[in-house]
Amino acid sequence: MEFPSRHIANLVEDLSRLPGIGQKTALRLALHLVKERSTLARQLGQGLLALETEVRTCVQCHNLSDGELCNICASSRRNREQICVVEGVQDLLAIERTGQYAGLYHLLGGLIHPMQGIGPSDLNIDSLLTHIQSSAPKELILALSSTMEGETTAFYLVKKLKDTPIRVTNIARGIPLGSNLEYADEMTLGRSLLQRTEYALPAS
Amino acid sequence: MEFPSRHIANLVEDLSRLPGIGQKTALRLALHLVKERSTLARQLGQGLLALETEVRTCVQCHNLSDGELCNICASSRRNREQICVVEGVQDLLAIERTGQYAGLYHLLGGLIHPMQGIGPSDLNIDSLLTHIQSSAPKELILALSSTMEGETTAFYLVKKLKDTPIRVTNIARGIPLGSNLEYADEMTLGRSLLQRTEYALPAS
Repeated sequence: MEFPSRHIANLVEDLSRLPGIGQKTALRLALHLVKERSTLARQLGQGLLALETEVRTCVQCHNLSDGELCNICASSRRNREQICVVEGVQDLLAIERTGQYAGLYHLLGGLIHPMQGIGPSDLNIDSLLTHIQSSAPKELILALSSTMEGETTAFYLVKKLKDTPIRVTNIARGIPLGSNLEYADEMTLGRSLLQRTEYALPAS
Repeated sequence: MEFPSRHIANLVEDLSRLPGIGQKTALRLALHLVKERSTLARQLGQGLLALETEVRTCVQCHNLSDGELCNICASSRRNREQICVVEGVQDLLAIERTGQYAGLYHLLGGLIHPMQGIGPSDLNIDSLLTHIQSSAPKELILALSSTMEGETTAFYLVKKLKDTPIRVTNIARGIPLGSNLEYADEMTLGRSLLQRTEYALPAS
């Protein structure tokens, strides 16, 4: 099929290369952007072009950043005694949304995955050691996915840090809040039994 | 929640203004674009900025166009004896995909919708009359949605053209191919009975 405008055709092709955007959605987005061409398309276009020049990576924790240090590393209100190790920005944002953590982060940029040829040297592990040396935290919280790759990476990090005085902790694995016990898988249920905690009465 | 980069935050906000893209999807797209910042983000950015300057509307049929006339109006291979009236670009593209039509188009840019205050003067109807005068087609095919608005618009156009010698036709309404008769709604089934055609044996 011949497309009425070469520009739109290219735009549709570029949009359909985004994750989760197929040809039909790309076309719908492109036609919407044509209608809005004076405002939204220009803003988006400028934002995308600015990505290349303006968005950087924090030299300390590898978070996305506008400057040399990200706003978490640069903030004086964050607790420097804790570093939370996560896979990437999305996990950092998920933890920030909980409002339960005020320490620093360190982004590994991936997980050890031998089948995909991703080893420890491909991750930000050397810089984690540097980060630990410079920030001297008391606790390193591992908040990695509960998958084979996450467990392997955690295991590697724990071994690597076993001679340091830092306390290494793991986020709790168990039954999600609000979920029905009978539908939980055995692994999770088993783990939640092993790692049971003292029952604390809610403050009245 | 504070976002690590002001630029990404703005990009997420702009992306989430696209139809069907929520906050979470926008974030996923933005983070994907950050990773790809050297190629896809630049291409998309340039494409979006070019929309404003490069994409025009065909002066004859209102299709999207790179030049004064769209490539359908400008093509010497299209049958100038037929004009197919559609609501917008998406309908034109849907008809083009069928490969069953080789005539010209005319895009109304909407349908008559009194409740939303859209009257005939808001649509490209005057230019349809000009288009008919200049192209002098033998047939005008109405391919409008089978909704109240589509029917109203079709009725208006037919009345408007009743003194011209042009044959005005409507695309067939009936049971979609491959669909089960028992699930068809009564209106469609009723219409398909009224507008039944002679059974044609498939060519063997």
